[in-house]
Amino acid sequence: MRMYDIIYKKRKGCELSDDEIRFAVNGFTDGTIPDYQMSALAMAICFNSMTDRETATLTSAMAKSGDTVDLSEFGELSVDKHSTGGVGDKTTLIVAPIVAACGAKVAKMSGRGLGHTGGTVDKLESIKGYKTETTVEDFFKQTRDIGVSVIGQTGNMTPADKKLYALRDVTATVDSIPLIVSSIMSKKLAAGAKSIVLDVKVGSGAFMPDLESATVLAEKMVEIGKHCGRNMAALITNMDVPLGCAVGNSLEVIEAISVLKGETVGDLKEICLALSANMVALCYKISYEEAYAKALHALESGLAYNKFKEWIAYQGGDESWIDDTSLFPKAGFIYEVKAKESGWIKAMNTATIGNVSSLLGAGRVTKTDVIDFSAGIELNKKTGDFVNAGETLCTLYTNKEEVISNAEQLYLSSLTFSNMAVPKPDLIYKTII
Amino acid sequence: MRMYDIIYKKRKGCELSDDEIRFAVNGFTDGTIPDYQMSALAMAICFNSMTDRETATLTSAMAKSGDTVDLSEFGELSVDKHSTGGVGDKTTLIVAPIVAACGAKVAKMSGRGLGHTGGTVDKLESIKGYKTETTVEDFFKQTRDIGVSVIGQTGNMTPADKKLYALRDVTATVDSIPLIVSSIMSKKLAAGAKSIVLDVKVGSGAFMPDLESATVLAEKMVEIGKHCGRNMAALITNMDVPLGCAVGNSLEVIEAISVLKGETVGDLKEICLALSANMVALCYKISYEEAYAKALHALESGLAYNKFKEWIAYQGGDESWIDDTSLFPKAGFIYEVKAKESGWIKAMNTATIGNVSSLLGAGRVTKTDVIDFSAGIELNKKTGDFVNAGETLCTLYTNKEEVISNAEQLYLSSLTFSNMAVPKPDLIYKTII
Repeated sequence: MRMYDIIYKKRKGCELSDDEIRFAVNGFTDGTIPDYQMSALAMAICFNSMTDRETATLTSAMAKSGDTVDLSEFGELSVDKHSTGGVGDKTTLIVAPIVAACGAKVAKMSGRGLGHTGGTVDKLESIKGYKTETTVEDFFKQTRDIGVSVIGQTGNMTPADKKLYALRDVTATVDSIPLIVSSIMSKKLAAGAKSIVLDVKVGSGAFMPDLESATVLAEKMVEIGKHCGRNMAALITNMDVPLGCAVGNSLEVIEAISVLKGETVGDLKEICLALSANMVALCYKISYEEAYAKALHALESGLAYNKFKEWIAYQGGDESWIDDTSLFPKAGFIYEVKAKESGWIKAMNTATIGNVSSLLGAGRVTKTDVIDFSAGIELNKKTGDFVNAGETLCTLYTNKEEVISNAEQLYLSSLTFSNMAVPKPDLIYKTII
Repeated sequence: MRMYDIIYKKRKGCELSDDEIRFAVNGFTDGTIPDYQMSALAMAICFNSMTDRETATLTSAMAKSGDTVDLSEFGELSVDKHSTGGVGDKTTLIVAPIVAACGAKVAKMSGRGLGHTGGTVDKLESIKGYKTETTVEDFFKQTRDIGVSVIGQTGNMTPADKKLYALRDVTATVDSIPLIVSSIMSKKLAAGAKSIVLDVKVGSGAFMPDLESATVLAEKMVEIGKHCGRNMAALITNMDVPLGCAVGNSLEVIEAISVLKGETVGDLKEICLALSANMVALCYKISYEEAYAKALHALESGLAYNKFKEWIAYQGGDESWIDDTSLFPKAGFIYEVKAKESGWIKAMNTATIGNVSSLLGAGRVTKTDVIDFSAGIELNKKTGDFVNAGETLCTLYTNKEEVISNAEQLYLSSLTFSNMAVPKPDLIYKTII
């Protein structure tokens, strides 16, 4: 078998066999197939796509390219959630304790932030003492003991995806449905959960620009997951506006705690309940309504809040910071951005808002950048809100005084105003089961 | 400027600017742009093609990527011929002395054979003493003195094309019109001749499989050449059957000498006169008919034959071998392949015949293979000929007795017979000026 023939076949629009796909993935992973052949194949896939069978084989081959997590001891109860990435997305912090309080098992390896989106592991590390590195044994023991464990990625998981993603990133072959599906789903399959709920974000702060392409992506991922024996659901949610009112690591943790304490309601709480309900429904094979009631009870009874504290304490985090979030260190400079005009906020360029947060110190531009946990943005007004000239639009938190002026300009440039009332944006566009 | 954006733009079907194309070619040549980005761009070009302006810029950038030959001292008289490659194509050996005898200047750097096609430099080296390596000064002096000089490629000509061709060869991105055009024409532009005649071969022994695609290729190359200030013509000729009756290095030289001596007529003589006439017509800006008469006179008067001897002697070749071609060493084994059935030869798979010649020792499979000059095939019967069972179809020449049986089988497999008379194939399909 020759990689040349595989590239040629895909270029000519033919379907690749399972053996050909496995040959390409395995050879690329072990280095016998060079980058320049893989990038040519990736480009041919961008043009001629892949059938569902090809995509399933590609996903499965990438999932098996390195270490995998075996969660079979938890039977039907192991559950995972994946967001395609957005701004202000702290849902894992709320959803994990809710579903664990319902009896499900959340053994999750999470990523770090890069570019305009944040990462769950970074957010958790803003809590004093929280350890995101642990042994696999402790990771399993914690899941057995309290039902939830969230650590950073460990071992050599899906090396094929890591290599291919890095290559696609520099060869303009990122936005291809079969390549996106296989990248996301290979990681989820390797992570081992029996039930998986996907949160596919769409809009100005998301990877998928429109509902149509997000729907195709979500449907394909649900199909591939089912084909590989997993229980699947996907929500398509709005990322034309940041989720909740906090962007930045400790600011987001504080907001999540406030939802768990029952002090904050609104879009963030709603989406967390919807995600939790879908997860619980898959685990227990019950109706969405029944699962929603369970999730709501876990949240409103305080069980989820207690589970959160139990989880954070188990991984070395300081519980007192959760009870009293004023203990989180504050940024040295706090600056209010005022409205120049009166009107309704019609749109927010959400990726730009993510970049403002990075600029303030909350994110990474390159993998080696060090994060300032206290930096970020508090959104005082969001899409659909009316603002009077001079009113506070948002509050910037940073330790770098020199970036405030640029950050303010950039933030203002991300907003579009209207003279007419603007409806509050939708939160969840659709659910695919 | 970023290569990523250039790839993305081409992937999305947009036209690249001149600066973008030069950035890609120069960066790829100097190694700052890695292979994996160039192969992705090449694949995107295979799908979305290039406009004539883009192709011209690409060609010109590749032509200028290394050393170039300056033939301006010869004014309008410098002329070059390029064949896209075929089996039994020894036309340069005949055409160069014809047009030099007409007063044109042929200063040519020629290639070696690889795969099923032969190379002019290899053929010339089969003449005792002929030197294909020389200094650039001697190359020019010889052209000034006698009007013809043919050496192997020297210096660092079109490194961008060498690198890109090697990459396309392993990434299934060879058969793209703009990439083929720029590869061929960049070399021709760098070679410096004012007038260029292209021999675009089409058929089972050629790179282009059908007349339609060969016509598109020829038209594009003529256009690009004119755009870069060259006088251009292209012939589209038949490569569904080998050219002449000899395949293999010294066998082809002997056949060429026989045409120059006026002893052999037929397809080879006809195509050489047509190529020569087009070359002379471009140099002197005269009609094809007038130029044809000049070329015919040069051939039939013996002037071309004398020019050939002068040329070979100038480069160190033994003239006595030309006067008496029986001095060329003979192969140790000469084997006649007999017809198993009676009938007309309907078709010959010409690439297969080229491969038989390679198998006998006349060609290279890899660049480092050593050529046996005496090996090859004499075609006793060609397409359109009637053959009786038991008659000789061809004669195999080799020094490797062990390959004869395989060579015979392979040769027989390349032929298709018919019970009905088959017309002689066309020689020249069309001329594009």
